[in-house]
Amino acid sequence: MPTYACRSREELRMEAQMMLARYEALQEEHLKLDMSRGKPSQAQLDMVSDLLTTLTEPEQCILDGADCRNYGDLAGLRCAREYWADMLGCKPEQTFVGGNASLNLMYDLISKAYTHGLKDSPTPWCKAGRIKFLCPSPGYDRHFRITESFGFELITVPMTPYGPDMDVVEELVRDPAVKGIWCVPKYSNPQGYTYSDITVDRFANLKPAAPDFAIMWDNAYCVHEFEGEFEPFPDIISLCAEAGRPNMVYEFASTSKITFPGSGISVLAASEENIQYLTSLISVQTISYDKVNQLRHVLYLKDRAHTLELMKKHAEILGPKFSMVLKMLRAELTNRGIAHWHLPKGGYFVCVAAMPGTARRTLELCSRAGVKLTEAGATYPYGVDPHDSMIRIAPSLPPIDELEKAMEVFCTSLKLAALEKFLGFTLL
Amino acid sequence: MPTYACRSREELRMEAQMMLARYEALQEEHLKLDMSRGKPSQAQLDMVSDLLTTLTEPEQCILDGADCRNYGDLAGLRCAREYWADMLGCKPEQTFVGGNASLNLMYDLISKAYTHGLKDSPTPWCKAGRIKFLCPSPGYDRHFRITESFGFELITVPMTPYGPDMDVVEELVRDPAVKGIWCVPKYSNPQGYTYSDITVDRFANLKPAAPDFAIMWDNAYCVHEFEGEFEPFPDIISLCAEAGRPNMVYEFASTSKITFPGSGISVLAASEENIQYLTSLISVQTISYDKVNQLRHVLYLKDRAHTLELMKKHAEILGPKFSMVLKMLRAELTNRGIAHWHLPKGGYFVCVAAMPGTARRTLELCSRAGVKLTEAGATYPYGVDPHDSMIRIAPSLPPIDELEKAMEVFCTSLKLAALEKFLGFTLL
Repeated sequence: MPTYACRSREELRMEAQMMLARYEALQEEHLKLDMSRGKPSQAQLDMVSDLLTTLTEPEQCILDGADCRNYGDLAGLRCAREYWADMLGCKPEQTFVGGNASLNLMYDLISKAYTHGLKDSPTPWCKAGRIKFLCPSPGYDRHFRITESFGFELITVPMTPYGPDMDVVEELVRDPAVKGIWCVPKYSNPQGYTYSDITVDRFANLKPAAPDFAIMWDNAYCVHEFEGEFEPFPDIISLCAEAGRPNMVYEFASTSKITFPGSGISVLAASEENIQYLTSLISVQTISYDKVNQLRHVLYLKDRAHTLELMKKHAEILGPKFSMVLKMLRAELTNRGIAHWHLPKGGYFVCVAAMPGTARRTLELCSRAGVKLTEAGATYPYGVDPHDSMIRIAPSLPPIDELEKAMEVFCTSLKLAALEKFLGFTLL
Repeated sequence: MPTYACRSREELRMEAQMMLARYEALQEEHLKLDMSRGKPSQAQLDMVSDLLTTLTEPEQCILDGADCRNYGDLAGLRCAREYWADMLGCKPEQTFVGGNASLNLMYDLISKAYTHGLKDSPTPWCKAGRIKFLCPSPGYDRHFRITESFGFELITVPMTPYGPDMDVVEELVRDPAVKGIWCVPKYSNPQGYTYSDITVDRFANLKPAAPDFAIMWDNAYCVHEFEGEFEPFPDIISLCAEAGRPNMVYEFASTSKITFPGSGISVLAASEENIQYLTSLISVQTISYDKVNQLRHVLYLKDRAHTLELMKKHAEILGPKFSMVLKMLRAELTNRGIAHWHLPKGGYFVCVAAMPGTARRTLELCSRAGVKLTEAGATYPYGVDPHDSMIRIAPSLPPIDELEKAMEVFCTSLKLAALEKFLGFTLL
């Protein structure tokens, strides 16, 4: 099948008529489907709902003489810190176990850098003049919004299949106003790329001009394979320590996509010095996080080995959904020269790079046919995709039959948007 | 019995010898007792531990088609907002239900005022020059520390049995640099005073020069009577609205001393406009709070009437402890002219005003006999009690027999400290 670019005007018109007919038929189905956010499905939540009955007796709440129902232990229950150390390959003393959202820990870290400064800050960032922050893009909109909300200048760094373009990163960090970078090292949001060992090494050996440069290492999908075996990942905290900048990295993770998205536990991992400094700052903010929920999670998830078994069961639900998305993309869009994508083995997204200038129109057409996707541009700083190309698909929430329908709408819309571009006029 | 001031030097020496002997005997018991923090006792926690088994079935988690286990509903579950509206006498739309700590909501409010500004702020407080904050004292150390940590100047306002001295408050708020005040309107920490209707009215009718002046209304003990019937309290949010400054007040409460201290739910109540503004700021910080725990609490606590029944059971445990404290104070310290105190009917503290210049020494002697109390000065800004007089007693945690012993140590230490002052030399 020839690419659209190689077809004649007449052939394109015929294709457009076919697609229009199909689109109109889909519109008549009055669909209402949502692929906008990486939400686990109800089947996944039901699967882990034994969490609700894991901790039922008052006696279970007493650990080493301390009552987890009461105030105390700001940095988290010892067993919860051990759990996360096992998960991330670091030491319990290098962890701070927080509340239900790692995003909140990231926000608080940036907020404290702004109001009080980080461990090695010469001054709080609010007194440091212009602050710049590196945003490998496409990336996670909520990361970018945090730093945007504090008025930092967001600088786009190109993403590659091996992680952020480190030549660019190494160049940019020579500017002392550049204070940090957002990273999703494993199954990056949205492309599903895993940073290569060389990329991770170059991160650990980064020599930024800012003494308080912060690598925001959001290991959101650290055990989230939906296909194949668990892929081990390096401990970025030791790597930074070995390279002589132990305080440069802050790693984040949570159980949001292991147990309940809104009711899990989260962790910040960093050098012991960083953890002590931050614990002291956080002691002004709160007395302790929800340790009953921490204990509930440790009892339920046990350790990394047991968590990985549970992730296999998530994969049984998620895997077929990703296969469906990829099957539809392949069947509908291969060899037309109007879109390409990567096949991830984990994470929560598939990212489709549509022909430049067609992403926004594709999403508009999807929306008019009742299918909601993440807004165009969301994966770039300030919500602006300079090529109007990247589209993030989140297949986890809908049941598989709805997903197939939603993908049919998506592919048809993308083809219509491309055809409009080639033909030079709008089709509907 | 004559007051110490009326006794002869010889009589004081004899009293000192008696007290020394008693103190030394107490020291030999090698006690290790803690009355430093308002922690509920294990008996109270066991009493409410049915909370652990209130929410056990996946089906319970689906409310009006929405799954409380998943992301969403940033301002809280509808039923949780209704619960808090019932508790506080405001509207559900005027509530934002947060995580496990109202202190965290207070911190976040001040932090956001600093970084982004409040609804009516001309500029974020970090760009507004010198900020001053009013601290009715004695008060709650954690309140004062929040505003101190942002570098605000803390201004002491005298407390009276009817609340903060409003003549002083009304005068101070004419300074536009004065941006807010900390309040515990019912059973104030540490004295247990409840603001009178006139005080509350004067708060609602305050006309501060700063357009973004914030009354931090920490209703921590709103239903926390340990003696007698529930005392209704006015809805400060309507009162401020009626007085024409609806956005001036932020009310806080939590279940920390109703269910589990570290694992409850919290609320911020304010004008609808404030709630909308803050929800939009908080949407950058987190996706949602722990709604499973919100639902668990609503199922367990039901409504205000049912919560008040539970508070009666807490009172059955707490009441005798406060009676013991007051009995010991009366027996040991009445009519000596060296201390006075107030008899609260609710809250978590008894505050003893020792003879000026003797609080720190009293606590030192307590500590040397194995009894830990809140640090001297903690109830004043910057941790400095200008009269070295106020001592906060938190009788909730120890069992009653330990409490009696701890109070014996306390009274003996206080008398020794006073005797040293009268005699002019240290006794040990």
